[in-house]
Amino acid sequence: MDYAIRDIRLADKGRERVDWAFQHMQVLKILRDRYEKNKPFKGLRIGCCLHITTETANLMVNIKKAGAQVYLCASNPLSTQDDVAAYLVKKEKISVFGKHGDSRKSYYENIKNVMKRKPHLIVDDGCDLISSFHRDDSLAGNIIGATEETTTGVIRLRSLAKNGLLKFPVIAVNDANTKHFFDNKYGTGQSTIDGILRSTNILVAGMTAVVSGYGWCGRGIAARFRGMGANVIITEVDSLRALEAVMDGYRVMPVSEAAETGDVFITSTGNTSVLTINEMKKMKSGAILGNAGHFNVEIDLAGLRSASRKRKVRECLDEYTFRNGKKIYVLGEGRLVNLACAEGHPSSVMDMSFANQFLALKHLKENRDMTPEVYRVPEDIDKKIAELKLAGMGIRIDKLTAEQKKYVNSWDMGT
Amino acid sequence: MDYAIRDIRLADKGRERVDWAFQHMQVLKILRDRYEKNKPFKGLRIGCCLHITTETANLMVNIKKAGAQVYLCASNPLSTQDDVAAYLVKKEKISVFGKHGDSRKSYYENIKNVMKRKPHLIVDDGCDLISSFHRDDSLAGNIIGATEETTTGVIRLRSLAKNGLLKFPVIAVNDANTKHFFDNKYGTGQSTIDGILRSTNILVAGMTAVVSGYGWCGRGIAARFRGMGANVIITEVDSLRALEAVMDGYRVMPVSEAAETGDVFITSTGNTSVLTINEMKKMKSGAILGNAGHFNVEIDLAGLRSASRKRKVRECLDEYTFRNGKKIYVLGEGRLVNLACAEGHPSSVMDMSFANQFLALKHLKENRDMTPEVYRVPEDIDKKIAELKLAGMGIRIDKLTAEQKKYVNSWDMGT
Amino acid sequence: MDYAIRDIRLADKGRERVDWAFQHMQVLKILRDRYEKNKPFKGLRIGCCLHITTETANLMVNIKKAGAQVYLCASNPLSTQDDVAAYLVKKEKISVFGKHGDSRKSYYENIKNVMKRKPHLIVDDGCDLISSFHRDDSLAGNIIGATEETTTGVIRLRSLAKNGLLKFPVIAVNDANTKHFFDNKYGTGQSTIDGILRSTNILVAGMTAVVSGYGWCGRGIAARFRGMGANVIITEVDSLRALEAVMDGYRVMPVSEAAETGDVFITSTGNTSVLTINEMKKMKSGAILGNAGHFNVEIDLAGLRSASRKRKVRECLDEYTFRNGKKIYVLGEGRLVNLACAEGHPSSVMDMSFANQFLALKHLKENRDMTPEVYRVPEDIDKKIAELKLAGMGIRIDKLTAEQKKYVNSWDMGT
Amino acid sequence: MDYAIRDIRLADKGRERVDWAFQHMQVLKILRDRYEKNKPFKGLRIGCCLHITTETANLMVNIKKAGAQVYLCASNPLSTQDDVAAYLVKKEKISVFGKHGDSRKSYYENIKNVMKRKPHLIVDDGCDLISSFHRDDSLAGNIIGATEETTTGVIRLRSLAKNGLLKFPVIAVNDANTKHFFDNKYGTGQSTIDGILRSTNILVAGMTAVVSGYGWCGRGIAARFRGMGANVIITEVDSLRALEAVMDGYRVMPVSEAAETGDVFITSTGNTSVLTINEMKKMKSGAILGNAGHFNVEIDLAGLRSASRKRKVRECLDEYTFRNGKKIYVLGEGRLVNLACAEGHPSSVMDMSFANQFLALKHLKENRDMTPEVYRVPEDIDKKIAELKLAGMGIRIDKLTAEQKKYVNSWDMGT
Repeated sequence: MDYAIRDIRLADKGRERVDWAFQHMQVLKILRDRYEKNKPFKGLRIGCCLHITTETANLMVNIKKAGAQVYLCASNPLSTQDDVAAYLVKKEKISVFGKHGDSRKSYYENIKNVMKRKPHLIVDDGCDLISSFHRDDSLAGNIIGATEETTTGVIRLRSLAKNGLLKFPVIAVNDANTKHFFDNKYGTGQSTIDGILRSTNILVAGMTAVVSGYGWCGRGIAARFRGMGANVIITEVDSLRALEAVMDGYRVMPVSEAAETGDVFITSTGNTSVLTINEMKKMKSGAILGNAGHFNVEIDLAGLRSASRKRKVRECLDEYTFRNGKKIYVLGEGRLVNLACAEGHPSSVMDMSFANQFLALKHLKENRDMTPEVYRVPEDIDKKIAELKLAGMGIRIDKLTAEQKKYVNSWDMGT
Repeated sequence: MDYAIRDIRLADKGRERVDWAFQHMQVLKILRDRYEKNKPFKGLRIGCCLHITTETANLMVNIKKAGAQVYLCASNPLSTQDDVAAYLVKKEKISVFGKHGDSRKSYYENIKNVMKRKPHLIVDDGCDLISSFHRDDSLAGNIIGATEETTTGVIRLRSLAKNGLLKFPVIAVNDANTKHFFDNKYGTGQSTIDGILRSTNILVAGMTAVVSGYGWCGRGIAARFRGMGANVIITEVDSLRALEAVMDGYRVMPVSEAAETGDVFITSTGNTSVLTINEMKKMKSGAILGNAGHFNVEIDLAGLRSASRKRKVRECLDEYTFRNGKKIYVLGEGRLVNLACAEGHPSSVMDMSFANQFLALKHLKENRDMTPEVYRVPEDIDKKIAELKLAGMGIRIDKLTAEQKKYVNSWDMGT
Repeated sequence: MDYAIRDIRLADKGRERVDWAFQHMQVLKILRDRYEKNKPFKGLRIGCCLHITTETANLMVNIKKAGAQVYLCASNPLSTQDDVAAYLVKKEKISVFGKHGDSRKSYYENIKNVMKRKPHLIVDDGCDLISSFHRDDSLAGNIIGATEETTTGVIRLRSLAKNGLLKFPVIAVNDANTKHFFDNKYGTGQSTIDGILRSTNILVAGMTAVVSGYGWCGRGIAARFRGMGANVIITEVDSLRALEAVMDGYRVMPVSEAAETGDVFITSTGNTSVLTINEMKKMKSGAILGNAGHFNVEIDLAGLRSASRKRKVRECLDEYTFRNGKKIYVLGEGRLVNLACAEGHPSSVMDMSFANQFLALKHLKENRDMTPEVYRVPEDIDKKIAELKLAGMGIRIDKLTAEQKKYVNSWDMGT
Repeated sequence: MDYAIRDIRLADKGRERVDWAFQHMQVLKILRDRYEKNKPFKGLRIGCCLHITTETANLMVNIKKAGAQVYLCASNPLSTQDDVAAYLVKKEKISVFGKHGDSRKSYYENIKNVMKRKPHLIVDDGCDLISSFHRDDSLAGNIIGATEETTTGVIRLRSLAKNGLLKFPVIAVNDANTKHFFDNKYGTGQSTIDGILRSTNILVAGMTAVVSGYGWCGRGIAARFRGMGANVIITEVDSLRALEAVMDGYRVMPVSEAAETGDVFITSTGNTSVLTINEMKKMKSGAILGNAGHFNVEIDLAGLRSASRKRKVRECLDEYTFRNGKKIYVLGEGRLVNLACAEGHPSSVMDMSFANQFLALKHLKENRDMTPEVYRVPEDIDKKIAELKLAGMGIRIDKLTAEQKKYVNSWDMGT
């Protein structure tokens, strides 16, 4: 078995943490039990490019136990957890290529190492592995299809498909309701608060929190801020969303006005330059800024840096002092606050995302005639995962009776 | 001027109430001011079949002041408010045909009276006026198009369209976001609680409330129950919605199990036989049942009646006593609790619905080449109404900057 | 049997409503069952001066079934429900003196009628019956003691006691935790919202609600406003309470500033002139004002009337138009909005209040050596009522183990 | 200058963190500015025994700048932050005695070092410094009085006072409303959630959280759990509190029953053996247990250990595996979860506690005739701190007008 990891002696520590994560991955647990016996992936090689975390480890084990040979490289060297890598190699006999902090060169060598195994199926996060197979298709001969985890990756894939360049079918896991919906509203909602608490230890109760963007992320964040006792202001550019925020009991105003009253500001718009130096100039001294959108473009850090002096005051917290003495604080250098300052989504949320990955792989394997396009996760998989999650939590729900089915159908047809 | 109303001397009282409603119809107010001058409906006759309420009166006045001649008949004789009818006739010179409690015969005579004016545009609620023009098209010659307020009406229209029988274009106002979304979540949410309080005067705090159905209505009702201090249980047949309810902090269980612990039960599924005699047999003595779905089929009243003795204990509240002495209470005979036991949607909610009606009429008039189909409300009208509502509430929001527009566009294209 | 009521033929209707109230008076129900057998009040005459409502009727029946002869007069002619009076006379053989709308003269005659029965125990609401026995003690010879329901009454009694004029012991039911605490926070909280909805039918969601006073009433009202989707502002004069309001996530500001942004204003300070003409001048046109404090002094109606023209627009809702066209709306003429515009406290809340009355009477009867003072309800009665309420709701709680009792005691003693 | 600290080179790092804490200590900031000039403590030596944290550092600086010489020893060697100690010595010239992890012997030497300075005033946390002066009063000659921060310390002091052994007046800072009320409800509420998130990274939304004890801590914890999306169950032994919990919308049940449904359990009763092995046997595998009460006696860890195998799975999280494979997880070894697994109370909360300390010292100095008793913080200090906190947060409130004062007074007197 081949691998490239930091230190195999970390395997025991890795195992404890992977086990803990598995406690809250009820759907993967059910799927693992179910497919360990009939091994749907028997004889297949599956190449994965993912963040090497405890949750990913559990997906890898699921795929392995379902019969596949598994090869894993890191989708980002900064997120690689070396103890998890060690555990996968030592205890689960999975080939892992990735060390925390790997250079750019090593990063691509790791990808190459997975490619060399000529996988039948691919699991990607950010599209780097799939892209590599498109740049050099000498190793792509066995590929049945792939899955992609992220919005960013899906956009790259759609662009390929539009230009007729996509070489195999890809399922966009990100679009599943049981993925993006729970990620955004419940995952980001909680982990943003978590990131703020860990990096500042401020009392949220009594604060005025400004949330820019009232999409699913923004709703989750606003709800959690309110739940912790903050008074919440929403800023929006979409009139319908703004009206919903008003009806949900929040104050809504332009960001330039909110700048004057906020104590803490979180951006979640998915757009650029939401908090610019103009807003910062209006803010109170002591204001805290963080980003829960995507990338690190929502807060204009360049503008801030050019107008102030910077020093680090706590882990994940920088202080910027203006010439007039006013201080602005920025969380995690404007990167995603839940990833940079906390631990990202809880396992329970990743569970549904990765269950989509697992069943999407199975779908690809069972439907070999799919043309090279970007596909949504089939709706029945989406529903099935919600069902399994409920079952895993010990929650039962109703089923439509025959009479009710008939009633609904007649109604839908307008007869 | 022709009309058929109860008592024209009620006009003053009607005016007061219509004025009060107008206080909270900010969008109609803005539209009235805007179109009173250039009179877009000048020279047009507009026939309307709507509930004759204070909110409808304000829509009628808007249309009149925008230049049209207006003819109004009742879409339901039981909802007709005679003072409002008197006000419209006496003060606004609008032809109204409808008395509270009109017979079936009078009901259709009233519709006929509106038809006879050979209207250019039609506003309908339940599709009876439009249907009449389809049964007898001798008076339909001038019709440019129509709008329809309700789900039920739209279903009938889609059926006509599918069979190639629709004679003119109809805009389905019900489908606008600013209509159904606010109606369901905020309107039904509040007015269901209102209906319960008026008909029972029970203390909601400390009660266990069971809400069947976690669609937009159910979410609104659940949120308001929680807001009044109840402990809320959700029952659902859809696994995804059920999982959302769990994540929102509610208990989720089968309705048969919820039946044993609930103090008050509200159905909002849009389906039939949700609370059957089987559930009722499991309920505690004193349980209160109401329906906020549609029609009166969600609670099995026939089953209940056959197993118990009925008496009325308060306005809008019937007591059913089983042979073993157990008592079950039903609100408003299982009809929509917010309409039967309270005053339906607040004016502020109807404002958006009727603003859609008004602008949809204007759209029909300005686009005379529309083929006979069922149309959605154009998206720009929907957005515009949200904007006007915010403006009417004195709330300002942000606009995308040129830089942000560019960023979003580049992103959407994946470049 | 002697009585003075409106119309004995209303008895059946009265019975239905009294039965309905009894459904939610779990503690009275338990006490009724318990004391119907051993009849602790056997041989005693009990004179009561209370609001003649469905809840009072149930207390009367409890006392009667516990062995007493009961005489009831109205504590306020405007709250007398004639059907309830008829029911008590016809079905329960209780002497009732009171007609809805009785004159001042009749009011005192009714009191006199109760006095003439030379009661052993007295139940009072507002202290008029007790005062009458102090003005003319020729009929007071049998009196063992009395109970008083209200703050106002208790203040009058404390004044008597301080001056050495009190002639028999009185238990201040108002001070029991199970009375004032639940009345204020849960009763007033809900019924204030109820009163607003019934008299205006406005959409609370999206409104800015200003609550003056963050005592127990104010907290209840603020919580319910938030629960219905309003954005809530608190005004306070006490810094500690203001700080709690801030930490609870509300905005706090001076009332003069809140005046500019509020849509609806509720006073609950227990003080005078909270909303004066100065605040009203700053308010937006359309602002709605109501009072949930005590009496009708919190809103300066005299000032408002002198600056504007008044007309009634709905039941319980007056419109005041200023010379510049601005309109201000006042609920229930500034009297307690939950009593004037809704039905007062729900039965479930009155249940605990009246259970205190019942057990306080029993306490007086069993402790005949109490000196003429104003007493708190004994703490064990207070706790007992909470226990019975829980039991009546089917809720079980823990008991301290022997080990825990010992631990707590050792701790309290600091050993 | 004398001191005993770990490493003076940590001073810069300490300063950054102390500065950050000061950002949210608005009351200390106002008091520092106010008393830096007239130096009320000039010529006094003040001996302090406190947790050496960033918040304590700010109190020390306040006292120093107000004119005193300050001597600080650690109240617990495990909470000492060495960088903070270094900062106080190097930058603020304050004598500090304490290293993280000091032995029991060093701990008492440090106390002795403070005693030797013969302080005029004492600030204590847990009563060890005050006790030491009682055991050996040769150095107590200058003492004017002392303040005590904790419940535990106050209990020891009350015991001394009761036995006539107390030698100087002590003000019980813990009893101030602005101390215990905000500590418990807002401080413990948030930091308990914080501790859970840091040590588990679980998704709170959708979990069933069981909170034992509905005192101020329990209310805070329950509110925050609900705010994060959990479904909350309360267990109580007090019927009144239990009833409040029911009315607040929570489920209430015996702990033995809650044991079967809970996912996470937090104790906050202040009593012993709340979660015993009997409850643990009923729990689901995966249940997480934590304590937010006092000491570590609420969870029966001895019982748990004897029935299971233990291993550590994450920082601050131990797994106990029963013979049947069931797993129970315990946070921070059953010690206070907010201190053991997070950073304790936020600075904003400690601000009010320490402002009480500061003003209580000033009160002692200005009232030298106080007899040796345990005193409450004077009410005007309590109110003043709430006022300053509001001012520091930029929040203004109303004052009673002359008319209102008169009204309230007349009312209170019942005239």
